[in-house]
Amino acid sequence: MPYTIGLDYGTNSARALVVDCTDGREIGAAVVDYPSGHQGILLNASDHHLARQNPADYLFALEHATRRAIEAARRADPAFDATKVIGIGMDGTGSSPLPVDAQNDPLALDPRFTANLNAQCWLWKDHTGIPEAEAITQTARRLRPNYLAKIGGTYSSEWFWAKIWHCLKTDPAAFDAAFSWVELSDFIPATLAGVRDPRAIVRGICMAGHKAMYSDEWGGLPDTAFLATLDPRLAALRERLYTAAYDASTPAGKLCPQWAEKLGLPVGIPIAIGEMDVHYGAIGCGVDEGTLIKVIGTSTCDCAVVSGEKSVADIPGVCGVVKGAILPGFTGIEAGQSAVGDIFKWFVECVLGDASLHAVLTTEATALKPGQSGLLALDWNNGNRTILVDQRLTGLLLGQTLYTTRAEIYRALIEATAFGARAIIERIREYGVPVVRIVCSGGIAEKNPLLMQIYADVTGCEIRVSRSAQACALGAAVGAAVIAGAHRDFQTAQAAMTALKPVSYKPEADAVAVYERLYALYRTLHDAFGGVTKSADLGGVMKELLAIKAEQFAPV
Amino acid sequence: MPYTIGLDYGTNSARALVVDCTDGREIGAAVVDYPSGHQGILLNASDHHLARQNPADYLFALEHATRRAIEAARRADPAFDATKVIGIGMDGTGSSPLPVDAQNDPLALDPRFTANLNAQCWLWKDHTGIPEAEAITQTARRLRPNYLAKIGGTYSSEWFWAKIWHCLKTDPAAFDAAFSWVELSDFIPATLAGVRDPRAIVRGICMAGHKAMYSDEWGGLPDTAFLATLDPRLAALRERLYTAAYDASTPAGKLCPQWAEKLGLPVGIPIAIGEMDVHYGAIGCGVDEGTLIKVIGTSTCDCAVVSGEKSVADIPGVCGVVKGAILPGFTGIEAGQSAVGDIFKWFVECVLGDASLHAVLTTEATALKPGQSGLLALDWNNGNRTILVDQRLTGLLLGQTLYTTRAEIYRALIEATAFGARAIIERIREYGVPVVRIVCSGGIAEKNPLLMQIYADVTGCEIRVSRSAQACALGAAVGAAVIAGAHRDFQTAQAAMTALKPVSYKPEADAVAVYERLYALYRTLHDAFGGVTKSADLGGVMKELLAIKAEQFAPV
Repeated sequence: MPYTIGLDYGTNSARALVVDCTDGREIGAAVVDYPSGHQGILLNASDHHLARQNPADYLFALEHATRRAIEAARRADPAFDATKVIGIGMDGTGSSPLPVDAQNDPLALDPRFTANLNAQCWLWKDHTGIPEAEAITQTARRLRPNYLAKIGGTYSSEWFWAKIWHCLKTDPAAFDAAFSWVELSDFIPATLAGVRDPRAIVRGICMAGHKAMYSDEWGGLPDTAFLATLDPRLAALRERLYTAAYDASTPAGKLCPQWAEKLGLPVGIPIAIGEMDVHYGAIGCGVDEGTLIKVIGTSTCDCAVVSGEKSVADIPGVCGVVKGAILPGFTGIEAGQSAVGDIFKWFVECVLGDASLHAVLTTEATALKPGQSGLLALDWNNGNRTILVDQRLTGLLLGQTLYTTRAEIYRALIEATAFGARAIIERIREYGVPVVRIVCSGGIAEKNPLLMQIYADVTGCEIRVSRSAQACALGAAVGAAVIAGAHRDFQTAQAAMTALKPVSYKPEADAVAVYERLYALYRTLHDAFGGVTKSADLGGVMKELLAIKAEQFAPV
Repeated sequence: MPYTIGLDYGTNSARALVVDCTDGREIGAAVVDYPSGHQGILLNASDHHLARQNPADYLFALEHATRRAIEAARRADPAFDATKVIGIGMDGTGSSPLPVDAQNDPLALDPRFTANLNAQCWLWKDHTGIPEAEAITQTARRLRPNYLAKIGGTYSSEWFWAKIWHCLKTDPAAFDAAFSWVELSDFIPATLAGVRDPRAIVRGICMAGHKAMYSDEWGGLPDTAFLATLDPRLAALRERLYTAAYDASTPAGKLCPQWAEKLGLPVGIPIAIGEMDVHYGAIGCGVDEGTLIKVIGTSTCDCAVVSGEKSVADIPGVCGVVKGAILPGFTGIEAGQSAVGDIFKWFVECVLGDASLHAVLTTEATALKPGQSGLLALDWNNGNRTILVDQRLTGLLLGQTLYTTRAEIYRALIEATAFGARAIIERIREYGVPVVRIVCSGGIAEKNPLLMQIYADVTGCEIRVSRSAQACALGAAVGAAVIAGAHRDFQTAQAAMTALKPVSYKPEADAVAVYERLYALYRTLHDAFGGVTKSADLGGVMKELLAIKAEQFAPV
């Protein structure tokens, strides 16, 4: 009975999961909150764009979460002991690069830099590199449009090069002190493998392809001439980064003696390559061609795969089409919504001022029919990641009367996120990515049947929920099981180790018909305020909402 | 020392005010709630458009409010006694017509009709006549466009003919039983004067001109041929209505012995002509050419006057330009916003669920700078009365982030009503009505300095507040003082009897500059969703709001 361990590095904490490779049973789990900063995040009161993390927290969590999960597994299953762990896998947020020295030690651990925010890990949600991202986009549009085509047409301030360049421009001392930069999801596997030279790290294609403009088509990372146009020192950094990146069929290394001892695991077991959290999450949800995986939380990430033998067009506004990302042998497609659960949380906590209202509002909103409120909202309180790729968009609510209730607004906000989800599905379908079913994961998917049913009615797709509440960590454990040889490939491993809950949300015809009309109005607003349409005719929007509302009240 | 009494018939209650004609001192007041229905309004659970009032309530309030006000005056001022009352004036909501028999008794007092909602007074906010109003508009556009030109281009379901025609179509028995129809503000003066034939009532030009398509230009009420096109029975009614209507320089009659006894007042004192509540309210606020009067409450009414010697153009979207309305010798202009205080009440009570929050939100909103929230709203939760004349419009809020607070929304809603107020001012100015200062009246004007300052900053006008909290009743008392001869004309009477509070809200240059930009965005949304613009370019709206927001936070 072999076991693997999956590690999942989130925004506020890291978790470890001990999984039975035969059936995916999760026999031990542990969560460690990052000790530093505000809920694990280092902030700067004078710049709300800044979000960093202390790499020491990562190492602390690595040791303690793994040990506690093993201990929990031992208590839960007498058949388990740590010698039966045959592999370890890890996923993390991204793009979250950190500067390292020539021995692959984080610059932040150097006493000269421990207090320097720029020497820490630059967390995915750090937006300090907005000007650099814009400059990269402008330069690439001019000189290397092919670099942008695979990542939706716009380079984001959340990504690798924007962050490194911003460090270079604002803190050259920190930049110069760093030998190289590593993504968190490459750093942890390399640490476990005892890699002592950043150039020797086996880097994952997920981060390389989606965040660092890496592609085999143009020989890896952006070429030196292009980088030199941005800054000669970025060009000089290129050779201290990497020349190849790999999918999850390639191991990241073997567990080194030092970390084997720290974790209480066998020396030399294989380490799966690191992937972005939701990519391994997609694997933990059983992703295959035709299934869209949605990990729904504060924001939402969407993942889909298409057989590697088919060519997939570049998709405007979709942040990545990367061969080998997510599932080996497939092309991975990643998209997402900048805020989902965060919007409901904002309304309940910031506007209504009472976090306990989620339950009662959900009950009241469930009693409403689609279209009954006359409301329509845009889900842009945190900008639009896909398909407009524009963080400078904001929320909108329309259709209020003097009788509009808080529950109606709550439902309208849920519907807005569903419309946003549909816009993504329509875009990727339009470019040849099949979506015939949806599998969701995350706390909202498990706890909110109203939202799930609305998503089914709005998208017209059956929706299922992953059996595991820890789909990302489970996916990392699946990756470890494959490279450790417990299964011959990912398909076999997914079939054995992942599953869905019995519940199924099926589109209901009446609701689908109403949401067709509401979605058309949503797209009218979306395209008007998103700048897609330059000549919008909106005079009928409020009247059409009132007409739909009246029909919901009409006697049958 | 002469005194007059002003009576003000509101939506839920009637009040009487005893006023000293020499200086406008209010020495006695009393309010009587209408006893019938829900807060004085007769409703129909199956039709939310229906709103009626029991005429018996009017007579009850007439007697009791007047008697109590006289009693209060006697207690407050030893110099006062009822023999010193030289005149009485009255205003009321409108258009609120009621069916009467050939003796001018309300049909509702006939035992056969007391339980019939259609025999009651059709309150201003009754919207059951929507189809009839639309048919009147269509027919007039085709046959008599001049009839509509003076009332903004659209006939409203709130007005005289739409209500009577709806009664005819849905309850011909009630229509047939009525000899004539009288506006509330004509009915009370006629009752006091003991008029026993509806054709002998001295009707006011306010209601006739603003609500019944009356004009001397075409010989009074709409012609028989036009009415016959609607329905021959409407044409037949015409000769049982009236052939002339008068401004406030003509008395409505003299107090009859029966009512003199009921009220404890001298027989034969003159009765001022009835006007719409806000028209006498404008007089109570000291209206003159160049001063816009705003009575701000759940909704807002705007009144302005232009010297009768000047010609005033018809103003599209403004519900009335009527010679002699409001102030004798002037042309009266009436406009309004369908919801103002109601919008704040909705947000605090329906959304936040706590009516006590007004105070704390006002304090927090006062601490915000213009534009700081990044929010923009449309004030259409109850449709748009002026300048779009479209009840099928709804509210809109735009610019929300994950950090938007309830106080920011509260302020944005206040600003939205200020922008709506400015749109009205711009429209009437554009057609030659001067607006150089604004005088406000009503509870919100007295209690909300934040709103007053925002209105000053948005409109660019100095704003003052009327001294009297009962400007409408005071205006009716002013009217009575003039026709009783205490003053030689309205200007002299206003100078003596009305005044402003010392407080003055002056536009502040910095705020004015920000609101110029926000108002431009408001108009963009207003015109787009109001159907004025068929090809709106809205892609920059959210970004411009974010730019304004950023400037508010920028260091000076």
